Amino acid sequence: MMIGRLTQRASCALRIEARRCKSTAPLTSTQLPNLKRGDYSSLTDADVQHFERLLGAGGVLRDETDIAPYNTDWMSWYRGRSRCVLLPRTVEEVSAVMKHCFDRRLAVVPQSGNTGLVGASVPVFDEIVVSMRRLNKRFDFDPIPGILQCDAGLVLEELDTRLGEFGYMMPLDLGAKGSCLIGGNVATGAGGVRLLRYGSLHAHVLALEVVLPDKDGTVLECGPALRKDNTGFHESHLFIGSEGQLGLITQVAMTAVPKPNSVQVAMLGCDSFLDCCKVLGDAKRLLGEILSSFEMMDSETMRCLKENHGRHNVLSTPAAFNLLIETSGSSQEHDQAKLNKFLESCLEKGLAVDGVLATSVEQANTFWALRENATLALMDDGYVFKHDISLPLKHYYRLTEAVRERVGSLAKRVITYGHVGDGNTHLNVTASEFSQELYDRLYPFVYEWTTQHGGSISAEHGVGLLKKRYMPLGKSPAHLAQYGRLKRFYDPRLILNPYKMLTM
Amino acid sequence: MMIGRLTQRASCALRIEARRCKSTAPLTSTQLPNLKRGDYSSLTDADVQHFERLLGAGGVLRDETDIAPYNTDWMSWYRGRSRCVLLPRTVEEVSAVMKHCFDRRLAVVPQSGNTGLVGASVPVFDEIVVSMRRLNKRFDFDPIPGILQCDAGLVLEELDTRLGEFGYMMPLDLGAKGSCLIGGNVATGAGGVRLLRYGSLHAHVLALEVVLPDKDGTVLECGPALRKDNTGFHESHLFIGSEGQLGLITQVAMTAVPKPNSVQVAMLGCDSFLDCCKVLGDAKRLLGEILSSFEMMDSETMRCLKENHGRHNVLSTPAAFNLLIETSGSSQEHDQAKLNKFLESCLEKGLAVDGVLATSVEQANTFWALRENATLALMDDGYVFKHDISLPLKHYYRLTEAVRERVGSLAKRVITYGHVGDGNTHLNVTASEFSQELYDRLYPFVYEWTTQHGGSISAEHGVGLLKKRYMPLGKSPAHLAQYGRLKRFYDPRLILNPYKMLTM
Repeated sequence: MMIGRLTQRASCALRIEARRCKSTAPLTSTQLPNLKRGDYSSLTDADVQHFERLLGAGGVLRDETDIAPYNTDWMSWYRGRSRCVLLPRTVEEVSAVMKHCFDRRLAVVPQSGNTGLVGASVPVFDEIVVSMRRLNKRFDFDPIPGILQCDAGLVLEELDTRLGEFGYMMPLDLGAKGSCLIGGNVATGAGGVRLLRYGSLHAHVLALEVVLPDKDGTVLECGPALRKDNTGFHESHLFIGSEGQLGLITQVAMTAVPKPNSVQVAMLGCDSFLDCCKVLGDAKRLLGEILSSFEMMDSETMRCLKENHGRHNVLSTPAAFNLLIETSGSSQEHDQAKLNKFLESCLEKGLAVDGVLATSVEQANTFWALRENATLALMDDGYVFKHDISLPLKHYYRLTEAVRERVGSLAKRVITYGHVGDGNTHLNVTASEFSQELYDRLYPFVYEWTTQHGGSISAEHGVGLLKKRYMPLGKSPAHLAQYGRLKRFYDPRLILNPYKMLTM
Repeated sequence: MMIGRLTQRASCALRIEARRCKSTAPLTSTQLPNLKRGDYSSLTDADVQHFERLLGAGGVLRDETDIAPYNTDWMSWYRGRSRCVLLPRTVEEVSAVMKHCFDRRLAVVPQSGNTGLVGASVPVFDEIVVSMRRLNKRFDFDPIPGILQCDAGLVLEELDTRLGEFGYMMPLDLGAKGSCLIGGNVATGAGGVRLLRYGSLHAHVLALEVVLPDKDGTVLECGPALRKDNTGFHESHLFIGSEGQLGLITQVAMTAVPKPNSVQVAMLGCDSFLDCCKVLGDAKRLLGEILSSFEMMDSETMRCLKENHGRHNVLSTPAAFNLLIETSGSSQEHDQAKLNKFLESCLEKGLAVDGVLATSVEQANTFWALRENATLALMDDGYVFKHDISLPLKHYYRLTEAVRERVGSLAKRVITYGHVGDGNTHLNVTASEFSQELYDRLYPFVYEWTTQHGGSISAEHGVGLLKKRYMPLGKSPAHLAQYGRLKRFYDPRLILNPYKMLTM
């Protein structure tokens, strides 16, 4: 076991692969079954002229080449046919746009960084795209309470960098941080790799400014950015994870978190998933408040990294499960002492068959590179069925085993890695090419198994178009009806982000 | 400066005083201005018989003596005239009750532990009380992910004790914990003394089971208790802090937090509030992840404690502001080292004029006793106007100064203590007896000043009856209208907890 010092570590965010890849759900919108254009008005020249008066000529994109990136999602899974992109710069402009779209019954897709993974941010037919990327002026940060108030169109990484100057950082970090916008993060209910430590966006959002898709383009103002305000309904939280179905988020007030002085990374090998759970228990007890990541890669992930990318495990003893454990704290000396004690305990108890602590930033990056590149390495197999599933830990790896048994030799690999600390598993099934037989073995089996075992078919990515058909699984009829009622309450003409998420 | 060891500390929750006291808002419901009984049906014998069939004889209280405690709030500020208390034991019973009350247009007050401080949990006229205290069977805790799922009628302290057996605790702690019920905590959006460290209930609630006041007594089921589930609207969060206006919470799924192994307490004296803010900045930097309380008592608070209770400050140097700082962590050795370094830094920089670290549990309790008894000591002055206000830190103590100037010699004392770390100030104005002149100087001045300076008139207690008239301050017309719309959406016959919170 190597024990060493780590003075500084570059960001370990899981990088979403930049290259377009073949993977699950390659349906274009026109191929989506049972999907017909809704009874919305079609865009007229008069509408365009009205928008140009509201936003100026630079605020309305009509050229097909300009519009193309807004019509396609980041994974190139979906392609819409919008003929108009609007780029408002102020909340007043967003409000005026929504008022007009309500009056005219024009369908609208709110779009932030367009980095979502479920097709929620692109048009399906000819919806107007309202892009929030020019709503990016306001940035106010008060370092004493650690409260940020900013426009929804600011890029997550830019916010993180600017907070860094004050010794703070954003509580969420995700692979798309260089492109995603904070308003889109909130609308998605994004999780990311810091969730185990800092909690979900519900733990941080204090208030939102939101424009409603109603006759007035009503603006729900942000209200004071206070850590505590217990007057009135906490309505802002309803827009977190609402996937652009209820309103357009134009401003965000939220807490930032102090940047840790010390980040430590270790890798542990375990023989069983039960041992992984025991190690998690020990990590919570011995690492306590400094535990910031608890990621797992199974031996199939390691084999794939080696075969497809030539990347070798940092552990010399092969193990069925590899745990990447990260701490973030305010004292390097204390954090290293805690981590050493924790590693010794795991080895002594026989919970781990091997363990190594990164001794440099470079080494820590090598550890994280295994986890970060897992997504890429498996794509070299040819075709990938990807999943973002939440399960109680007692069923976490049983899903992988059940899928392995079910698909047999139809799959090249059944690989699992994920955020064990959050109960979030990224199960991947690879094959040399798309196979309908494999598809039929997997679906709806995977999602039904998940909900039957108390899990969620979407841990962090949302529902969008990708999982809409499975949305009713595990939901009571009362809940599904209530979602429809809420949708109609906020969006009476159903003009906002139609065809997605809801099965009403 | 004393530096020492502290092995264990008893709960430091701020105790709500058990004795009935004279303080602000002593209006009984019948004296509340402009309040008329709504157009609700009156309870008939047939209703009572129906409820007895649903709940059994023990589930319906009709005797005046039995009902009296349900008609009066904990502070004896309000007294309702309900003639019927219902005690359902299951969600099905709650649903059947609400269905009948909807059909008959009978007004209902949901009541949990009845420990609220704004009159939200007692009837105003003859509303039926639906008490949740017998809905207290389910307790499921999974220690690996640290997830609790339980009935809404369980007492907070009981939950804390039962979690303690697993090495966990509830993330919230408040003075009323021996009587308050978890469902009531959620409905109130309770804060408490651990908020600085663990965040609000939004950071912990994963899912709720809720009964709606509609024609079916619709039950929104709890859904899976997962750390991550991003399918569907996050509607549970709308019921946090909804003050029993939108539905009845019958089950709660939430995260618990690991119990700290080490708790350290220190007191620091500062000459200015600006120095207090600088100390808070240093505490965040040097104590980081272990900082769990940052409380302030001004010199007037200390004088009052001495004069009325004979309690002496633990600091030998008198200071304008006294800071009670607590850390909670997983290693006593590390936590003490961090706290020592922090105290030395504050003294060296001249931010603190004196500082002392508790060396034993008894000493820590003495430190906390000052903070806990502040509320009681000032009551001996005679009459107290109390407040629960949230302000940006730059205005935090300016309110105290503005009030002091405004009331002059009309007040005996103007005292401030509070959770500085959360921006939450408990401003208190005392006099020998109630004075209308003093009242008129204070209101609406205090609340208008607060909202004009970006604050909230209720940081953690809620609105209820007590602050209803000031609810519109600082809110946009769009927000106020939206509250009314949300109310009607969930409660179309407005039968749930009428007369309170909302000004529609």
